[in-house]
Amino acid sequence: MEYRSEPGTNPRLVIYDTDPGIDDAIALVFQARHPEIELVGITSVFGNSDIDTTTKNALYLASRFAPGVPVARGAAAPLKCPPPEPIAHIHGNDALGDIERIGHVDALEDGRAAHRFIVETVRAHPGEITLLAVGPMTNLALALEDDPEIAALVREVVVMGGAFGFNGTLGNTTPAAEANMHGDPDAADIVFGAPWKVSIVGLDVTHETVMTTAFLASLRDRAGDAGRFVWDVSRFYERFHADDGMSKGIYAHDYSAAAFVVARELYTVRSGPVRVLTDGIAAGLTIQKPASMLASAPDWDARPACDVCIGVDADAVLALFARTLTG
Amino acid sequence: MEYRSEPGTNPRLVIYDTDPGIDDAIALVFQARHPEIELVGITSVFGNSDIDTTTKNALYLASRFAPGVPVARGAAAPLKCPPPEPIAHIHGNDALGDIERIGHVDALEDGRAAHRFIVETVRAHPGEITLLAVGPMTNLALALEDDPEIAALVREVVVMGGAFGFNGTLGNTTPAAEANMHGDPDAADIVFGAPWKVSIVGLDVTHETVMTTAFLASLRDRAGDAGRFVWDVSRFYERFHADDGMSKGIYAHDYSAAAFVVARELYTVRSGPVRVLTDGIAAGLTIQKPASMLASAPDWDARPACDVCIGVDADAVLALFARTLTG
Repeated sequence: MEYRSEPGTNPRLVIYDTDPGIDDAIALVFQARHPEIELVGITSVFGNSDIDTTTKNALYLASRFAPGVPVARGAAAPLKCPPPEPIAHIHGNDALGDIERIGHVDALEDGRAAHRFIVETVRAHPGEITLLAVGPMTNLALALEDDPEIAALVREVVVMGGAFGFNGTLGNTTPAAEANMHGDPDAADIVFGAPWKVSIVGLDVTHETVMTTAFLASLRDRAGDAGRFVWDVSRFYERFHADDGMSKGIYAHDYSAAAFVVARELYTVRSGPVRVLTDGIAAGLTIQKPASMLASAPDWDARPACDVCIGVDADAVLALFARTLTG
Repeated sequence: MEYRSEPGTNPRLVIYDTDPGIDDAIALVFQARHPEIELVGITSVFGNSDIDTTTKNALYLASRFAPGVPVARGAAAPLKCPPPEPIAHIHGNDALGDIERIGHVDALEDGRAAHRFIVETVRAHPGEITLLAVGPMTNLALALEDDPEIAALVREVVVMGGAFGFNGTLGNTTPAAEANMHGDPDAADIVFGAPWKVSIVGLDVTHETVMTTAFLASLRDRAGDAGRFVWDVSRFYERFHADDGMSKGIYAHDYSAAAFVVARELYTVRSGPVRVLTDGIAAGLTIQKPASMLASAPDWDARPACDVCIGVDADAVLALFARTLTG
């Protein structure tokens, strides 16, 4: 079981809910190698590509980097709105940068739907499971619908998604919405309103956390197979970023949420309930009522507080990645 | 005509569209005293109080600080949504801090509705009028509806309103919406979509521009009647700010937009079309598509770019106020 942590540590049990996706794959490699994370399952969801592609990619990633970790196929479409447009220009036709795939795919799909896998795994490990969700939140919303009591049994939920304006941008899919929120705004609004501990790692901090070409090249040269893979898989993604006006590097979106799981001290958070707009031109926009706002706001006040990341020690977050891959 | 600028300068002709309001009154005093501003009219609108109260206040302010400047009564309610809740806890029962009023009110209402006053004044001075709008945008939207061609005849529109997240807050009336945008989101979306030059001075910069108690006391002691008035009128407003968690001072919301008219070099702006959400829990939220966002966004792309203030030299903006009142 190579994905297990070193003896003597006290690992967190993580279910990785993901739509791989290049940055999803990079975050998976980190989790597989970090001694404080024990991956107990990977659940796929539509998002960066269709569900067949993201599930196939999850099986490939598990086979290569997390052998033995079960993979459960998740939602093919959002709860209510139409599926997102294809975004092959960001992640490639195969959603993993169209690189040559090394090795056999010997992982098999778990027989359960992703949301059932989540429910049963949470029930089997009460208080221990961290749900790390880096795609549309559909599987988590379906799990809550299926068994609302899991909210009290999950250790915490860490989400990559949303944007709260701190970097001057509210969205990347639209001017209002980050891609994961836009992918299923109804599901996200359900997840942020459920009575569990939710932390949200959005564009406010991921746009501050850039893996430069030089950083990635260094990992290629000194982090073995994992480093080589991160380099190869990020070539396509880096070209997209360049076309989008960014010079020499990629945003570490999904990895940032994985880093938060083991190193939340590297982030500054703001507490308060969060709503997600579910329709109109701003569907997918995330809006927090900060705890400092004293006026009543009925659409927020009845909901639990979430921790929203508003600052990051990006150098330390990147150093954690390099240390974990080379260590 | 005491409100006229000094001979030898080349003043801007300004119509001040306002819902006085304490910070509106402070901004009026500044305009009345600044040599580069020639107030050619004050148009009232509901907002900080009902239209009777704000019109009465506009007449009082004109009588005391801008004698001879016509006052036209404007909209009593937003275009479509219900009027805002009373906010006497912010501006006082009379919306001017419930202070004793000095002097006679000899200003009379112009016979025209505010939007007609705007249309006719713009047509009388093509290319010369700056519309400085610091309340709900209803009068401006009605003027555009009445005579769309004025858009090409206005010099520029400067708005106090909105919030784009840069200070970490999207709204002050709700978590999503700044008060002027919330007051009439339909009107604001019309104004920001019309083919005229619009600059938006929102909470992103007004929350950075704080008139401290010490600053206000200094003006009280050395800026004559204007300074005394600014001190008196701001006592109530300062108590509201204290109740809202702020220590010792007031936000210079409306004054910031007046300062922008004569000193835009003190602000950093971002260009791009702006939408205002008109319904749902985030009604009144302002969302810009920054020019740096390359992806298409049909709900934004067909609209003209606005300049949104994202940074301010607050010390210089405050110094400008003190210099103007004491000069």
